[in-house]
Amino acid sequence: MYGGREDVALLATVTLFGVLLQAYFSWQVITARRRFRVSPPATTGPPEFERVFRAQANCTEYFPLFLAVLWVAGIFFHQGTAAACGLLYLAARYKYFHGYAVSPEGRLGPLYFSARVLWLLIALSALGLASHFLPASLKMSLLRRLVVMG
Amino acid sequence: MYGGREDVALLATVTLFGVLLQAYFSWQVITARRRFRVSPPATTGPPEFERVFRAQANCTEYFPLFLAVLWVAGIFFHQGTAAACGLLYLAARYKYFHGYAVSPEGRLGPLYFSARVLWLLIALSALGLASHFLPASLKMSLLRRLVVMG
Amino acid sequence: MYGGREDVALLATVTLFGVLLQAYFSWQVITARRRFRVSPPATTGPPEFERVFRAQANCTEYFPLFLAVLWVAGIFFHQGTAAACGLLYLAARYKYFHGYAVSPEGRLGPLYFSARVLWLLIALSALGLASHFLPASLKMSLLRRLVVMG
Repeated sequence: MYGGREDVALLATVTLFGVLLQAYFSWQVITARRRFRVSPPATTGPPEFERVFRAQANCTEYFPLFLAVLWVAGIFFHQGTAAACGLLYLAARYKYFHGYAVSPEGRLGPLYFSARVLWLLIALSALGLASHFLPASLKMSLLRRLVVMG
Repeated sequence: MYGGREDVALLATVTLFGVLLQAYFSWQVITARRRFRVSPPATTGPPEFERVFRAQANCTEYFPLFLAVLWVAGIFFHQGTAAACGLLYLAARYKYFHGYAVSPEGRLGPLYFSARVLWLLIALSALGLASHFLPASLKMSLLRRLVVMG
Repeated sequence: MYGGREDVALLATVTLFGVLLQAYFSWQVITARRRFRVSPPATTGPPEFERVFRAQANCTEYFPLFLAVLWVAGIFFHQGTAAACGLLYLAARYKYFHGYAVSPEGRLGPLYFSARVLWLLIALSALGLASHFLPASLKMSLLRRLVVMG
């Protein structure tokens, strides 16, 4: 049977860390608004401000995608693996944010890394779902073929 | 008993398709940034670029709302129906994106269609939740009245 | 055993209210676009329009964070408490939106209140998760110490 709290507790923990990271990014934008005197509703100003603003906007944009594949991979593939990928993703986003604040080039390395982790979570989700929908008989015959080949 | 993987597998599959579609839209924005030479953090440029940028922004904005009602409708009304609506919504968003890339008017048809599918998912969610909270005795008497009227 | 529909029905209901509120905010932006003649893809115009636009953007940005902690707090701490906090948050966001539409200062009171409710949900999530991961033996000894102190 599936569906107890223990089956999603690690996913929920990584989700909470993600929310805290997004709250931290929001705080950085508020600080940048004060430092560079860009009052709401304006979203344009000196490049230093715009980089911080866009860094937060980009992380915010990807956050729902991240949560979606974190949970699908965690429920249909393996909770611990998905949670570990989730922590890597959040660490990459932290580096991305501070890299972008310094220069547009500084964002690229961590951005590519975070994208690779996201694709890994997508692949794990697809694998987990495929294995869920594959009939057990087909799975058995595939497994037997692998054993015979091995 | 509710809560097994089989009760959400179709919802998770549609969610994964949605994430892939959003990744595709992000890729289109990156391509448009290169073609029209709009380097981050800038978000303004020729109208052709701004339409692609806004198309992605609008899809991104609605994605969490879509996921929320997809899952509530799928859990409280009917999984298969919600998943089918979900696929329709994603198809409409694909058409919307490419329509908007051509002209602001090109986005309207698929936008209205996607809004109608979203309202349908909202209605199914409301129905499912209402039926969950309605006491069984009241449901029975409503049903009996319908039978008598029929 | 955890995982039945009744364990998340209140969370799903507040989620649905949240989606309806976001749909209402989107509608207000469409109305403001017409009133102030700001056609898509433009997002700049008179300050009255930009305030409505930014109010919706800010609510949209926080919506996934809100849903994430609503569900984590509701599943790991207490469903009813989380749902009640959720309703308070949505009420604050409604006031924020209309306050911002009038003036940038008008957004501040409800914004701070909504942030406080969000932090409360974050704290409840953290408490719920900590209590989930704490070994039962440690919980017992902590409880016994509290009883002895009392």
